[in-house]
Amino acid sequence: MGAPNGSNGVNGHAAPEEHALGQDFTDLVIKSMGPKTSPRMREVMSSFIQHIHDFAREVHLTTDEWMLGVQMINAAGQMSTDKRNEGQLMCDVIGLESLVDAITYQEAVKSNKPLTASAILGPFWRSDTPTRPNGTTITFDTPSDGVVAFMSGQVTSADTGAPIAGAVVDVWQASTNGLYEQQDPAQQEHNLRGKFVTDAEGRYSFYCLRPTPYPVPGDGPAGQLLDLLDRHHWRPAHIHLIIEAEGFKAVTTQIFDSESKYLEDDSVFAVKDGLTVHFVPRENDPKAKFQLTYDISLATQKL
Amino acid sequence: MGAPNGSNGVNGHAAPEEHALGQDFTDLVIKSMGPKTSPRMREVMSSFIQHIHDFAREVHLTTDEWMLGVQMINAAGQMSTDKRNEGQLMCDVIGLESLVDAITYQEAVKSNKPLTASAILGPFWRSDTPTRPNGTTITFDTPSDGVVAFMSGQVTSADTGAPIAGAVVDVWQASTNGLYEQQDPAQQEHNLRGKFVTDAEGRYSFYCLRPTPYPVPGDGPAGQLLDLLDRHHWRPAHIHLIIEAEGFKAVTTQIFDSESKYLEDDSVFAVKDGLTVHFVPRENDPKAKFQLTYDISLATQKL
Repeated sequence: MGAPNGSNGVNGHAAPEEHALGQDFTDLVIKSMGPKTSPRMREVMSSFIQHIHDFAREVHLTTDEWMLGVQMINAAGQMSTDKRNEGQLMCDVIGLESLVDAITYQEAVKSNKPLTASAILGPFWRSDTPTRPNGTTITFDTPSDGVVAFMSGQVTSADTGAPIAGAVVDVWQASTNGLYEQQDPAQQEHNLRGKFVTDAEGRYSFYCLRPTPYPVPGDGPAGQLLDLLDRHHWRPAHIHLIIEAEGFKAVTTQIFDSESKYLEDDSVFAVKDGLTVHFVPRENDPKAKFQLTYDISLATQKL
Repeated sequence: MGAPNGSNGVNGHAAPEEHALGQDFTDLVIKSMGPKTSPRMREVMSSFIQHIHDFAREVHLTTDEWMLGVQMINAAGQMSTDKRNEGQLMCDVIGLESLVDAITYQEAVKSNKPLTASAILGPFWRSDTPTRPNGTTITFDTPSDGVVAFMSGQVTSADTGAPIAGAVVDVWQASTNGLYEQQDPAQQEHNLRGKFVTDAEGRYSFYCLRPTPYPVPGDGPAGQLLDLLDRHHWRPAHIHLIIEAEGFKAVTTQIFDSESKYLEDDSVFAVKDGLTVHFVPRENDPKAKFQLTYDISLATQKL
């Protein structure tokens, strides 16, 4: 038997552990990226790693706390499906989707790119929404607690003020039970969604539901996070819109009923100044109790 | 038909979007936490939200880039099981587990708490590992490319230098195919793991495999991330250890073969100064080609 040889120091206490806490360690992780990393990936991940490490150091994040976060992330993935994106919802409740939407919009304005990135549409937009005649309805299975409204407006050029004929107004909304048609077997296909093409005067119109608040799904880690943060789950009443016209920058937006609850504390922080709208009583129309006028001005797409 | 009434401004361009980019928006999200949020949750999430927002603003994160991250998080959850934690592995490749381990250790030293938080053990430790006699082996299905080593050492008190009798050295390692026994149907139960109790002189000893490098699983988003960062998937050769003794602070650690590849670029950043060990040739022992002496000094657990 050979004698013990080259005794290897002892335990691994303070010195190495403290080393890992510092900026040197973060630099090591960032510099581990290889030369074939794309410049944009390098920029994004360098900043992400720096901020995540700074966060962990700042709050002295413990292993148990970190593991709780890992478990919530794994749970989010496990309950996500074609019809539900829990990872997205977790980002929404910390305001991240709203923030990247704003950043993306700002970048697009700067670079003069069209604003039609599909991801900002959220999980409920559909690409195959039917075009419907102006003045018709998108509510086909109006629930007993549903209130019908008539929505109309004019699409004009921000530069000249001239009406834009042939602009497409793509609209979708949830029913009073908080579900979009593809989440709800009780609603018919394409209920509460439609595309409307503006006439020669740039006008569009349709009947829809006056929107109602609904809670985001609370049965997953996003709901768990809201509970841990002592926050409610509700979104204010809103309608989704995309407005597109040839030669103009498209706009993807949500409009919020000015009389809705939760305007000040939307659980996913989507309410922004200038996006609230006023429903007013509609007279002499048995088909609708309220009406909403929403005019849209589109910026010219510079080439 | 009522006349249009209360026209609601137009589009929702620059002003509201720019608003959402600033610190005001981040403050709004942080202040949304209710009064029943625990103080620690408030501290952790305030810092997390601040850093995630700062990151998004700093790199001008776009919706498409963010959605790619969401998809990777969801995919991590979808492939995680009892035997595999892909969310953990994604954190590991950005150095986060190593960092929170170090922070947790440092906090425990400060507060004089025991260092036995289960989460830092990683996914392959087992609570039901059998105790084995000193001088016996933990390698029962030694693969043809496996090299056996004899590992021994003395556990002493850091304060007095006195040997600690009855200390428990809990050891586990992967086989040469990179799999721990619970991942590998070809290995017998409890292969390559065991607990050894120190004798009156504080000594422990056993036969094991000289450890070999292996790649972390590459079939999920963690592997995808490593590829996007142009990094390899390999971990350097290592053995896991927990050393516990009554009246002393437990130590959970990994020791790394000083001759292994990937010491400088461990894909999960677990290598720290003072954790590398030297295997030397073993003479006159047909059962082992190498030996390793690893002495352990434990700090007194102050009450």
